[in-house]
Amino acid sequence: MGGSLGLALRNVEAEVRVTGWSRNPVTRSKALDMGAVERATDTPEQAVEDAQIIVLAVPVDTILPLLEQMRVSLKPNAIVTDVGSVKSRIVAGGEESIGGRFIGGHPMAGSEDSGIDSASMSLYHSAPWVFTPTAITDSDALDACCQMARMVGAKTYVFAPETHDRIVACYSHLPHILAYGLAQTAWDLAGEGAAISAGSFRDGTRVAGSSPSLWTEILMDNRAATLRALERFDKWSHSMKIALTKGDQKEIEELLVHAHQAHKEWKTTRS
Amino acid sequence: MGGSLGLALRNVEAEVRVTGWSRNPVTRSKALDMGAVERATDTPEQAVEDAQIIVLAVPVDTILPLLEQMRVSLKPNAIVTDVGSVKSRIVAGGEESIGGRFIGGHPMAGSEDSGIDSASMSLYHSAPWVFTPTAITDSDALDACCQMARMVGAKTYVFAPETHDRIVACYSHLPHILAYGLAQTAWDLAGEGAAISAGSFRDGTRVAGSSPSLWTEILMDNRAATLRALERFDKWSHSMKIALTKGDQKEIEELLVHAHQAHKEWKTTRS
Repeated sequence: MGGSLGLALRNVEAEVRVTGWSRNPVTRSKALDMGAVERATDTPEQAVEDAQIIVLAVPVDTILPLLEQMRVSLKPNAIVTDVGSVKSRIVAGGEESIGGRFIGGHPMAGSEDSGIDSASMSLYHSAPWVFTPTAITDSDALDACCQMARMVGAKTYVFAPETHDRIVACYSHLPHILAYGLAQTAWDLAGEGAAISAGSFRDGTRVAGSSPSLWTEILMDNRAATLRALERFDKWSHSMKIALTKGDQKEIEELLVHAHQAHKEWKTTRS
Repeated sequence: MGGSLGLALRNVEAEVRVTGWSRNPVTRSKALDMGAVERATDTPEQAVEDAQIIVLAVPVDTILPLLEQMRVSLKPNAIVTDVGSVKSRIVAGGEESIGGRFIGGHPMAGSEDSGIDSASMSLYHSAPWVFTPTAITDSDALDACCQMARMVGAKTYVFAPETHDRIVACYSHLPHILAYGLAQTAWDLAGEGAAISAGSFRDGTRVAGSSPSLWTEILMDNRAATLRALERFDKWSHSMKIALTKGDQKEIEELLVHAHQAHKEWKTTRS
């Protein structure tokens, strides 16, 4: 996420100066080589010394510890945002640390691949980028973050942290759980048929290629909302099981027709 | 499916003569206009009179009635195959009607769109095409069907009808059920967030755009195997719910790591 942002920012606006830090020295030198950063520092403290906006593009468990580590090195009006997939806990912690200049952020881009080798200048193009202000948010800081997101082609949205977490439970965390579970189920029950799987399985399991450790952190962080989404899904799935058991064609069709309609409405709202 | 096959066959091999019939006259004239067929007939009986291979590209509920209707018009050595997504019942019925020259087939291509307007010459390119012979299958008829599938670029596979049905329950029918259920769940719980859904939701629900009536027929036809797949998925999902409820990070990670590994194995087997 960080590498792609550096590449995109430096590409669209020559005056933007990007400094980067990664705990991995190999990543730092790769980022320099590919032009994702102008300067790479040995410590996070050095990276933020002169920075106006700091983007914490690290796994969700690392965001707050890293913020704490760099806090004393921040310029007085520095703005800090993150790219974590879950917001309630992180925003609460960020605000406790630096107040209203911490702006929770979540660019909804990326792929099942991660790391500097997957960095792409166009990652954020047309992607939604959500910011999650609260009652104490500094509105200039929020504007600056939105502006940065738009510079790299993202569409910005603003939701309260809790609303964001309910939404992503449905539109990101539940799809990941279903993808992992589908991959496991098919392999267990019909491994010998892998060669004849078609598009619905390929697309339905694509994100099972995502990092299990990263997703463990995300799911742990958004447990409550994800559980609610999974339980709601189960209710639907239970109705389908009963209809299949009974051979109730009318009920099966009704379930599919409604879901098909919901999918259509989603498509319309989205475009 | 039928339109795409006609387009592809006529494109790769000038000597292949394709005659088509559809119950819808508009489809017939469109198929002629786009060159998917050389000749379109008013009745299925006329279409099969001189045919060597008949491909029944109709919904699963219509395959056997249509075969029955055209049976008396078939040439003595005509071969009949179908493109239905479920095989056990259809193959049993097809063999009862015309014996070992009925070859169950299932090209695993297509998209959430259907109908002649979605016909594409490249639909079958690199797609798996399964045939499902039984003990009474005429082996020359099977070879002829495989040859036709390879002509349009498909990779052919051979499985018993029951094995096919267990495999597609996992690699096609379960993914469809999950896609419909996911679309319904997200719309019910977080409709206002539709705009910020990302790739995992888009891909995970893509096939919820498929025809509900078509999929009702398919699920009804493969009820037993689909139920077994859905129940196996539920077992996995239940473990995930318990782990989320407890906040058991180790258990969540274990579930994801295993599923991620299964996905990797699938990818390797497939390529």
